[in-house]
Amino acid sequence: MITGKNYIGEELSSKGDVSFKTFDPKENKETAATFYEATTEEVDAAVEKAASAFKIYKQKTDSEKTEFLEAIAVELESNAEALKEIYRAESGLPEGRSNGEFARTCNQLRAFAEMLKEGSWVESIISNPEGKPDIRRMQVPFGPVAVFGASNFPFAFSTAGGDTASALASGSPVVVKSHPLHAGTGELVSEAIIKAAKKTGMPDGVFSNLNSKGIEVGEWLVKHPKIKAVGFTGSYKAGTALTKLAADRPEPIPVYAEMGSINPVLALPSALEEKGDFWAEQYAGSITAGCGQFCTNPGLILGIESPAMESFVQKLGENLSNLAPSVMLSPGIEKQYETSKAEILNQEGYHEVSKYDGELQPNFGRQHVITVPGAEFLQNKNFHKEVFGPFSVIVKCKDKTELAEVIQQLEGQLTGTVLNSEEKELNEFATIIDSLTETVGRIIYNSVPTGVEVCAAMTHGGPFPSTSNAKFTSVGLTAVQRWVRPVSFQDWPQSLLPQALKDENSLGILRNINNKYTTDSL
Amino acid sequence: MITGKNYIGEELSSKGDVSFKTFDPKENKETAATFYEATTEEVDAAVEKAASAFKIYKQKTDSEKTEFLEAIAVELESNAEALKEIYRAESGLPEGRSNGEFARTCNQLRAFAEMLKEGSWVESIISNPEGKPDIRRMQVPFGPVAVFGASNFPFAFSTAGGDTASALASGSPVVVKSHPLHAGTGELVSEAIIKAAKKTGMPDGVFSNLNSKGIEVGEWLVKHPKIKAVGFTGSYKAGTALTKLAADRPEPIPVYAEMGSINPVLALPSALEEKGDFWAEQYAGSITAGCGQFCTNPGLILGIESPAMESFVQKLGENLSNLAPSVMLSPGIEKQYETSKAEILNQEGYHEVSKYDGELQPNFGRQHVITVPGAEFLQNKNFHKEVFGPFSVIVKCKDKTELAEVIQQLEGQLTGTVLNSEEKELNEFATIIDSLTETVGRIIYNSVPTGVEVCAAMTHGGPFPSTSNAKFTSVGLTAVQRWVRPVSFQDWPQSLLPQALKDENSLGILRNINNKYTTDSL
Repeated sequence: MITGKNYIGEELSSKGDVSFKTFDPKENKETAATFYEATTEEVDAAVEKAASAFKIYKQKTDSEKTEFLEAIAVELESNAEALKEIYRAESGLPEGRSNGEFARTCNQLRAFAEMLKEGSWVESIISNPEGKPDIRRMQVPFGPVAVFGASNFPFAFSTAGGDTASALASGSPVVVKSHPLHAGTGELVSEAIIKAAKKTGMPDGVFSNLNSKGIEVGEWLVKHPKIKAVGFTGSYKAGTALTKLAADRPEPIPVYAEMGSINPVLALPSALEEKGDFWAEQYAGSITAGCGQFCTNPGLILGIESPAMESFVQKLGENLSNLAPSVMLSPGIEKQYETSKAEILNQEGYHEVSKYDGELQPNFGRQHVITVPGAEFLQNKNFHKEVFGPFSVIVKCKDKTELAEVIQQLEGQLTGTVLNSEEKELNEFATIIDSLTETVGRIIYNSVPTGVEVCAAMTHGGPFPSTSNAKFTSVGLTAVQRWVRPVSFQDWPQSLLPQALKDENSLGILRNINNKYTTDSL
Repeated sequence: MITGKNYIGEELSSKGDVSFKTFDPKENKETAATFYEATTEEVDAAVEKAASAFKIYKQKTDSEKTEFLEAIAVELESNAEALKEIYRAESGLPEGRSNGEFARTCNQLRAFAEMLKEGSWVESIISNPEGKPDIRRMQVPFGPVAVFGASNFPFAFSTAGGDTASALASGSPVVVKSHPLHAGTGELVSEAIIKAAKKTGMPDGVFSNLNSKGIEVGEWLVKHPKIKAVGFTGSYKAGTALTKLAADRPEPIPVYAEMGSINPVLALPSALEEKGDFWAEQYAGSITAGCGQFCTNPGLILGIESPAMESFVQKLGENLSNLAPSVMLSPGIEKQYETSKAEILNQEGYHEVSKYDGELQPNFGRQHVITVPGAEFLQNKNFHKEVFGPFSVIVKCKDKTELAEVIQQLEGQLTGTVLNSEEKELNEFATIIDSLTETVGRIIYNSVPTGVEVCAAMTHGGPFPSTSNAKFTSVGLTAVQRWVRPVSFQDWPQSLLPQALKDENSLGILRNINNKYTTDSL
């Protein structure tokens, strides 16, 4: 049952006077529960509990944390139907998506559990050549982490999503600022985490969940001296504001903000000539996937003018017109979509490709694609802006030189994609492809950017402004690196050394010993 | 010969009107050469050259970069006498130190060369389970790096020091802002780097060296849109100013600022009872090493009141009085030393232990140690301040509880040290030792904090304010991680994949393939 209360550690709490409700965008009406906005006192209590829990939680072995993460997945699965139901109500997302994202979230928790079982993630390094001090280094968690739930992934990027899973794996307690659009989903997911924490003997305070419709709770959290890092997925505006807030603290802390991207797609001539229809179909699907509300939505398609490109554009337009629009996450997001789109459509110099003009239910998003000549795109930065929703700009460059200039001008992106049908063309465009690669965190060949695998090799990150820190990923196993720092132990007694650094490699992990990688003991 | 000019890539340049001279603090007179402050135009030219060089340099193989780094060491060695002579003149540091730091600097370059030969530093990860996209990730350099020379290590933390060596190893061109105290040393070191770059076929612009006595050149560098990261060793004031400047850029960039520390030493009762005289001798040496001008200088010694502690304090005082003072790096630094010390000595509630009162030559630094009761230290933060020079505060706590409070209150530190003679005492003080470990980047057992090994396991870093980013080290092989970011290649053609990610592991490096570490090919 959804109580609408905050989880201050294991305790349900509703001390505030401010309340709000969530909204079913498909039914176009409020959902049943009433949520209580966390007070400063509640924020403080959650962080204080997290700081106390940290002293205990950071000492938990990888194997104990494994049990905890696996238990969270089990608790989620034991309440799957209720979770998916409130997820769908609060997001308008369809059943298939609720199933997929739910499975992804449980798998993600288990993937981090597997990483802990393997154990080498602590990056153990031992240097003790003869005649020198014995120095041993590993990664350790540095304190409570604040996680901001994302609007567009109520399961996978929110309460028990990648930020929380990776932070808990690292040994860091988590305080979630629940996303106001899906506070009910957040509460039920939190309930599962709290149950798992109790069952596996984790300290009270290892996890808290705070409701908030305004910006204050998030600000208090980021400014709290006992919060040591922040994970965020959302808008550029909110992400940069939080990053600035954290940098201005007496003790600055890192904010890992994933702030979105227009995900340029470079359609090389051969791809459009040989497989134009195929890509027109694939991209109609990718542009409208999740009603365009993915961080990796292809908002920009770049090519060189040609009859093949004209035909691709036309096909893409036709395909888009034939797709039924879907509901957006909330009335506010639908309104924002129309506003951002209007700002771009207010410019001169573009052409309509496809604009869904039929009647729509409330809160549904109209897919919309335009073309812009390369020269126009180069001189009008408004066409570079991200529009959160099923909107894309196709840039028609007059030649390779203009295409190179366009790519040179792009800001940092989560992904870049190259479509190609002839290997030799890759050499001709090598400099342009290299330039695109410099701009992105993930470069994709002959596919669509939507879809982000949870695996060790994933980078869901990229140069500013796609994120606040290009050195890390928010998806995949190396996401754990965000919450740890190295400590070196010099001539430290064996009895006091952490397990991962003792002479005997009882964990069987990979270690760098005097510049050789080995699983041997010393 | 020292020309006093800037190196804009391979070109010597002196377009400015502003000039300055360096100063021999031991002889108390200016040195011969005149240095020309870089102009905005020269800063811009250096960065533009670096940005162009980046396109070529980042493509160099690890084996080509190895040759470059080794060639720098060889060029330095071929001009060793002239280098050490100007080093000693510009720093006042003695011959033994010039030899030691010179050897360290060459060894450091060779250590990064060895890391490149081994090759696994790129952190290659391949995830391609059946039925999923093929994703391959590695670390790549992200652009030109600005390095600020440090006053206290003209060789090892300056022009060809750890920041430069690690950045060049990563594939990033470097623009050095030379430290004004040792601009002559900087120029001769730069000459060696430029010669090595030419001999090994590196692009013009891979390295530049800018003279500057004021703060403008550094600010222009940090604000230049084509500078992508900054390495800095120096004061808290300058480090935080640069960090803020970089955060306020339209495209914020990381600043890795190592800003110093008071390096607390926890002298447990057993250590003072059983080896008090030994530690009094060791610490007299450590406090005055390099005239106290090391980032790891032990500025704070913590213990619990006892006759053994009294005797340690007395012995330490005697030893310090018997040591001959040495010259500081410059008149300005000596003056600043006296000023910072006076601010502390203006407080009430401390006792003198040892204060060198004899006659001194100009620019020599007087070693000075005081004791402060724990209660006083807890309530007066002035006693926590770093004094750059041979000054230390000994805190006498009345009991374990007060000691715990003192450690709890400390800010982030580069190092912490534990002195102990009885293993069971470590258990009694386990919580306090853990609390100290949370505060530092390197925790040392039964030694002195001065001395920082260049090895893979070193962390010369620590929580704020000892550095601006606790996740990285400025000394040791993992220093390279500061200049790189991950890129993931999805379904990328073998022909275009970087060598480290191809199916065939021709580099023989360690890779994570589907969560197994292996040097096998796919």
